[in-house]
Amino acid sequence: MDRQPALLFDLDGTLVDSVYQHVLAWRRAIADQGFDLSAWRIHRRVGMSGGLLVNALGRELGHEFTDAQVQAVQAAHTRYFRELSGGVGPLPGAVQLLRELGHRGIPFAIATSGTRATAGPSLEKLGLGPEVPVVTRDEVPFAKPDPDLFLAAASHLRVEIAYSIVVGDSVWDILAARRAGALGVGVLSGGYSRQELEVAGAFRVYQDPGLLRDHLDELGIRG
Amino acid sequence: MDRQPALLFDLDGTLVDSVYQHVLAWRRAIADQGFDLSAWRIHRRVGMSGGLLVNALGRELGHEFTDAQVQAVQAAHTRYFRELSGGVGPLPGAVQLLRELGHRGIPFAIATSGTRATAGPSLEKLGLGPEVPVVTRDEVPFAKPDPDLFLAAASHLRVEIAYSIVVGDSVWDILAARRAGALGVGVLSGGYSRQELEVAGAFRVYQDPGLLRDHLDELGIRG
Repeated sequence: MDRQPALLFDLDGTLVDSVYQHVLAWRRAIADQGFDLSAWRIHRRVGMSGGLLVNALGRELGHEFTDAQVQAVQAAHTRYFRELSGGVGPLPGAVQLLRELGHRGIPFAIATSGTRATAGPSLEKLGLGPEVPVVTRDEVPFAKPDPDLFLAAASHLRVEIAYSIVVGDSVWDILAARRAGALGVGVLSGGYSRQELEVAGAFRVYQDPGLLRDHLDELGIRG
Repeated sequence: MDRQPALLFDLDGTLVDSVYQHVLAWRRAIADQGFDLSAWRIHRRVGMSGGLLVNALGRELGHEFTDAQVQAVQAAHTRYFRELSGGVGPLPGAVQLLRELGHRGIPFAIATSGTRATAGPSLEKLGLGPEVPVVTRDEVPFAKPDPDLFLAAASHLRVEIAYSIVVGDSVWDILAARRAGALGVGVLSGGYSRQELEVAGAFRVYQDPGLLRDHLDELGIRG
């Protein structure tokens, strides 16, 4: 295997500017079940597996959601996110970063806790070629913060996870990176603070994909 | 003057759960002018004076907004916020906290960088009596992070600002508190991290108004 680092990207908040719409979509979906949950608590869970997120939020509400409720919340979230996500597009520099990696022959993949249904439109806007592996929640037993998504992405690229760099906006990406044995790098574009990502174990934190692109050499990426 | 501490509250993100709707409303208002600005950058400016916010965001875009554009963005923000704020209500414990302060005879006021137009519906949901001073952006020359709003609020209460405690969710509240000479206390309910508020100078940071209420004694509030 090659020791050239590969990049494994989270999607929402890392490559596309969609976190705040996800927050409000989850908030409405949970309100439909009769629960009022503060937006900031949802924000700090986005990026987790949807099932974990609903259960974790239920615990904060002191309510155990039934399986049927979890499914109803997830379905409503998908619907509300579609309603709110009209203006969602790539974050500054995201398209240019991925294009540059492609030109330089640096392997990369996308690994998202989202489903094909919610991730599809965002992926289209990134203009990815068919050669870029995209792993969604539908393809692994457990989404983040379990390591499965990033392990599957590395496996698709035929790279070793130990030489891979996970780029994400949430502490769940950084935790999944650590559990997978990859290096974690943070971006602020999902609305977490630098300190939260650093404390979680991010080796570096950049403002957004554009600034990550300007500093690829800091991650030992050559060529 | 009385040395009993008075509490001067920010509104959005501190007493009502409205920050994420404000973020998306500003984002759409700026998009109407042809600019695509990341939601997280807007989030970290919410709580500032609207004029400062638009100018600051313009600078990040490398564009100087004309006065007419600033006004157009602010008007569009008011409109989009109304559209998005259907579900906006008090944060957990906010109504109970203010009621308890009233019962215990502890003076308090509200001081918001928002205008009467955007703050009105939120204020109604808090069920405040007419005896509670509310200072909005319309009544002072400069909103946060200038100290004017909190100075005016203390003056309405006839308390000394040096014995007052400013409670806010953003670093702009904490900066305005410091400039006014008041003690700053943070809440996480606007989506800033604990570390950001502490580094800005918050003496204590609580998750939301409900948890602040449970710890009033930590702020030297007696009676």
